[in-house]
Amino acid sequence: MSSVYGKNLIVSIFGQSHSEAIGVCIDGLPAGKKIDFRELKKFMGRRSPGKNEYSTKRNEKDDFEVLSGIVNDTTCGAPFAAIIRNMDARSSDYKEIMDIPRPSHADFTAQMKYKGAQDINGGGHFSGRLTAPLCIAGGICRQMLKHDGIEIKAHISEIHGIKDSLFDPVNIDMTPLDDGFPVLDKAKGEKMISAIDEAKKDDDSLGGIIECAICGLPAGIGEPIFDGMENRISSAIFGIPAVKGIEFGNGFACSKLKGSQNNDGFYINDNKIMTKTNNSGGILGGISSGMPILFRVAIKPTPSIAKAQDSVSMSKMENTELVIKGRHDPCIVQRAVPCVEAAAAIAVMDLYIEYTGRRI
Amino acid sequence: MSSVYGKNLIVSIFGQSHSEAIGVCIDGLPAGKKIDFRELKKFMGRRSPGKNEYSTKRNEKDDFEVLSGIVNDTTCGAPFAAIIRNMDARSSDYKEIMDIPRPSHADFTAQMKYKGAQDINGGGHFSGRLTAPLCIAGGICRQMLKHDGIEIKAHISEIHGIKDSLFDPVNIDMTPLDDGFPVLDKAKGEKMISAIDEAKKDDDSLGGIIECAICGLPAGIGEPIFDGMENRISSAIFGIPAVKGIEFGNGFACSKLKGSQNNDGFYINDNKIMTKTNNSGGILGGISSGMPILFRVAIKPTPSIAKAQDSVSMSKMENTELVIKGRHDPCIVQRAVPCVEAAAAIAVMDLYIEYTGRRI
Amino acid sequence: MSSVYGKNLIVSIFGQSHSEAIGVCIDGLPAGKKIDFRELKKFMGRRSPGKNEYSTKRNEKDDFEVLSGIVNDTTCGAPFAAIIRNMDARSSDYKEIMDIPRPSHADFTAQMKYKGAQDINGGGHFSGRLTAPLCIAGGICRQMLKHDGIEIKAHISEIHGIKDSLFDPVNIDMTPLDDGFPVLDKAKGEKMISAIDEAKKDDDSLGGIIECAICGLPAGIGEPIFDGMENRISSAIFGIPAVKGIEFGNGFACSKLKGSQNNDGFYINDNKIMTKTNNSGGILGGISSGMPILFRVAIKPTPSIAKAQDSVSMSKMENTELVIKGRHDPCIVQRAVPCVEAAAAIAVMDLYIEYTGRRI
Amino acid sequence: MSSVYGKNLIVSIFGQSHSEAIGVCIDGLPAGKKIDFRELKKFMGRRSPGKNEYSTKRNEKDDFEVLSGIVNDTTCGAPFAAIIRNMDARSSDYKEIMDIPRPSHADFTAQMKYKGAQDINGGGHFSGRLTAPLCIAGGICRQMLKHDGIEIKAHISEIHGIKDSLFDPVNIDMTPLDDGFPVLDKAKGEKMISAIDEAKKDDDSLGGIIECAICGLPAGIGEPIFDGMENRISSAIFGIPAVKGIEFGNGFACSKLKGSQNNDGFYINDNKIMTKTNNSGGILGGISSGMPILFRVAIKPTPSIAKAQDSVSMSKMENTELVIKGRHDPCIVQRAVPCVEAAAAIAVMDLYIEYTGRRI
Repeated sequence: MSSVYGKNLIVSIFGQSHSEAIGVCIDGLPAGKKIDFRELKKFMGRRSPGKNEYSTKRNEKDDFEVLSGIVNDTTCGAPFAAIIRNMDARSSDYKEIMDIPRPSHADFTAQMKYKGAQDINGGGHFSGRLTAPLCIAGGICRQMLKHDGIEIKAHISEIHGIKDSLFDPVNIDMTPLDDGFPVLDKAKGEKMISAIDEAKKDDDSLGGIIECAICGLPAGIGEPIFDGMENRISSAIFGIPAVKGIEFGNGFACSKLKGSQNNDGFYINDNKIMTKTNNSGGILGGISSGMPILFRVAIKPTPSIAKAQDSVSMSKMENTELVIKGRHDPCIVQRAVPCVEAAAAIAVMDLYIEYTGRRI
Repeated sequence: MSSVYGKNLIVSIFGQSHSEAIGVCIDGLPAGKKIDFRELKKFMGRRSPGKNEYSTKRNEKDDFEVLSGIVNDTTCGAPFAAIIRNMDARSSDYKEIMDIPRPSHADFTAQMKYKGAQDINGGGHFSGRLTAPLCIAGGICRQMLKHDGIEIKAHISEIHGIKDSLFDPVNIDMTPLDDGFPVLDKAKGEKMISAIDEAKKDDDSLGGIIECAICGLPAGIGEPIFDGMENRISSAIFGIPAVKGIEFGNGFACSKLKGSQNNDGFYINDNKIMTKTNNSGGILGGISSGMPILFRVAIKPTPSIAKAQDSVSMSKMENTELVIKGRHDPCIVQRAVPCVEAAAAIAVMDLYIEYTGRRI
Repeated sequence: MSSVYGKNLIVSIFGQSHSEAIGVCIDGLPAGKKIDFRELKKFMGRRSPGKNEYSTKRNEKDDFEVLSGIVNDTTCGAPFAAIIRNMDARSSDYKEIMDIPRPSHADFTAQMKYKGAQDINGGGHFSGRLTAPLCIAGGICRQMLKHDGIEIKAHISEIHGIKDSLFDPVNIDMTPLDDGFPVLDKAKGEKMISAIDEAKKDDDSLGGIIECAICGLPAGIGEPIFDGMENRISSAIFGIPAVKGIEFGNGFACSKLKGSQNNDGFYINDNKIMTKTNNSGGILGGISSGMPILFRVAIKPTPSIAKAQDSVSMSKMENTELVIKGRHDPCIVQRAVPCVEAAAAIAVMDLYIEYTGRRI
Repeated sequence: MSSVYGKNLIVSIFGQSHSEAIGVCIDGLPAGKKIDFRELKKFMGRRSPGKNEYSTKRNEKDDFEVLSGIVNDTTCGAPFAAIIRNMDARSSDYKEIMDIPRPSHADFTAQMKYKGAQDINGGGHFSGRLTAPLCIAGGICRQMLKHDGIEIKAHISEIHGIKDSLFDPVNIDMTPLDDGFPVLDKAKGEKMISAIDEAKKDDDSLGGIIECAICGLPAGIGEPIFDGMENRISSAIFGIPAVKGIEFGNGFACSKLKGSQNNDGFYINDNKIMTKTNNSGGILGGISSGMPILFRVAIKPTPSIAKAQDSVSMSKMENTELVIKGRHDPCIVQRAVPCVEAAAAIAVMDLYIEYTGRRI
């Protein structure tokens, strides 16, 4: 499949960092759904660079153009397609890395796979820029899900050891975050920003963890074994570059608990069956339980740093030192927050269409 | 898809804990490959219960019967199918849970999804027993990969806070573990066994973490964005019941490091490009780098415990207490080790067939 | 995919003519549906050999054993699996063809693909016998569809130039055929049987055409371009060995008509929009129109004939003559009728699940 | 899937007749392959309208813009995307058909499926215009296949009863046709053109049959049962609007022959195993035999005709007469010829990538 996701909703992402355009085609969206494009642009804005000190200086114009699938701001059943033109691209920045791969980037593996045919400029198809069309697709799915009472909200839960508050797993406040740094506790956000500034001054970068909740999903969605909610959400989330781990519910922490501590006891609440805790993250046997879906995602530090690094010349097969030029984010965690929401929205929408069917 | 995995290798798992049989159909295996069935049985034996004190008392006969796809112990290109008959099943143990769901089991979500039609006996299709056909499929893939120099090895890295040694990420000793408790450091294994015994006496259970390595995979395998090695391995691994998280390379720990600490510098070693560290877990941009693939998997404590637990009567819609009868593992982490290898082998084999093609 | 069909309903067929068993796994069947197994056996009986003069003498026992997915004759949501044991197989009949391929059989192409690893006995995985598990799967889908008012009926429309009556395209009599030779006009059936007897005496074989109708399908099912009803039905129907063509509505005959003759004018009938003719075969733009779905399938003459034929020795690379021994149908068209219904039922069920969704 | 085709090569087609643009995204193309864009434009030109008397008067500018996947005219491994802007669209022509569906068009079924949300202008996503991006994708695949010695060639074999010569099934002249009317026998082509002119004068339209050959494909490609060459080619070919049937080899004619007449005897020719006849159309058991792949496709007469036709008002639920305005082809068979080549090229390329793998 490669850059294509889904079964009943098929999302195809295309483009390279410096190609004519990047974009997305979405096949299988329900027809007759109004899209609020102002809202979508606002959502896109949350991942946009260039807004502040802690993001890349590249002035990406993320204005997308809708090519198909929409009539009067409403889905018409035909595949949706939208593109973003690439404008402010300085290809000369990237000459060197064709021979000297950047550590922990895809330069080396792309060379191993495509044998020199790959588009190296700006990271080509592996660029974080490709999360823009991901956010177009995810932003649309997010709106459609919200219309049916299913909401998705993510925040930074940790950057370089500084921890934000966590969601209350059984009772999540789904009020959207404001436009600032996407944390629950603003004071912690300030500390994170300081840490990022510090890293930037030091020509370095930081990673972090994002927590995401999905509320309002009916119980009974997801399939056993290979097609459960965890399988499908994780295979979408790993579509975001820099993601190195995912855990549902209490995740890796469950390994430290006893069954009696980890199990989520059932009880009747207001004539509804709920659980008192939510260590399962709202998923049992791959199927949604009606409790909030909860997961956390590990984001590695931006691999592009201005510090000198060890690398090799692939042509000469000798060790060398690499100093990466160009503009890079000292931290992408804050920009990855809407991307996590977008990938989750795509995975959930695909499952949700499977659940509701195509009969209107 | 549900209980079906893969693109060029398609694995379909069927059966319920107490149905006539459980089994697997594998479509797309390369033809002309000799299978060592004694070796396969040995591999299956690693997940078998009833061997010792710390596993369920159920005497599962995991003898499988091959139905198709094999001529003279060699794959013939036709789909492989094998079944395991269900024998020692005591369905009466499970009457109550049709109404009173076991906490952190799939009983409740199965009811929400199948509205009473689900097979509740022994957990039905959600039973851990379904990992037996997973291991048949994975065991075969594992043999085929090994024949091409690709080896897979997992061990328990943690049970209830007791930590085994970890693999050396850049230089893994792939010598198979002996038949005992699957740890690198036997002394740590003894401590884990004691902890399990303790939990058992206390009518409780324990979870843990499994570390898995894949060595010998050529660089250049995997596709960008949605079809990378992380996406595909994770969507197979979440096919194992009780898995709640997966992380590649240093995973969640990367969030605490700076880019300069986390990046894996390249160097020339014996005329080969390698990295000095392997925080990336052998995957960059979704594509294998030639370094060992490394990931860790979180396994929750067995949800079936003999302790009284809070639950509800779904028919009466009232709170109640549940005491689970029957035989259950106080810890399944040791039995999950070969399952993790099996799921990884299936995911890698699917990718490997895509890479090599079907031209013999 | 190979021997796997479907998207939301996944049918995996396994087995070789002389392996331990042949069988099928069906993933994604709706839960809670009662299966009438006596009815299913009766359906299977329609493709069974050995009943009469014009079929193979092989006494296949087509008694299937259900392994999983059924509780109290009702689907439980878990994958359905069933097998048929292979008993009366005389492998010695097939020794020669490993070297000397039978004309118009898969012997040669299997050798080109599997390089000698293929199971040649009885045609291996390419045997017509594999249509037995196809009929199990299709028979179940057929029952489920019938329960929702969707009926499927096929008959022989031609054997060796002898033509049966055709369905009235706009008003099909869906009364099931009796157990005899599957034609609408019994007199024509007698002539066909005579022609088959004649061919048999002459050590030869005959092909034919099957017409199939699907009634009761709501309008609005099917997707544009690559996933329409024609695409999906045809990709299932070509799963039956010996099928060499498919046409929908008036099919190839449309090429002789003018638009004004070929177009199906709309009219109001009993407050429903219908068409006066049905040259489109109930499908417009890949989507069902509510009129009967109609298609015809070309079945080639059984390639196994007792007459001497030209072939080659693949080992000696020289021309030779081949006389095929063993038991073979002089005509398989009558046995292919339920197979066409089965393949159609599987394709329609897959589409129908997509349409209705999984929400019960 | 809907407007998405393929497994290892994934082609997503988007756009409506009058949307901003139509286009295609191709995921999985081999990297490092030079594309001759002049050649591609020439190929696209073969389906372009407006060239002559017997095509629509709409002046479609089929100039496509490549957005991604190409560096220096060479595939770079990233998904290929290209779009064609829609310019000369007169939406006012289509107002009426929202209520009064055109006979044998998708207007009615689109209404049944999308309940009024569909884009009706110019036929929306169901327009024949969507074969332009199909030809972009197919044209690229065709070039890549040709580079490996696999050639595809189609011609009109029949229009309204006027028959062109057929390919010699065992020895096909693969010299490309000239730019004129795509027939083998120019005299027959003249007669077809006259028949089309006649139909046009009469406000009517004509259908026809297209024959297509694929030469140079190695033996051993294709999978058994549901994933054979027939299944996959047919599911691509039915992606072309107006296709109502497909037959391989001698197809429906095989039903009139005896096995002894229909079977293709093998013989040694120049140390290669070939068949003396090619009634199988180069496919046995779903797998290529090395003989030319041969199939024929039935194309219905253009449903849009200027003659008054019976239809209904869907809002008033009453019978009415429809006179279609706008510009329409009296015959699309000649324009469908490159589309058949394109769909075949996509299907074969997908299979070919599966066969060769992604290892360069």
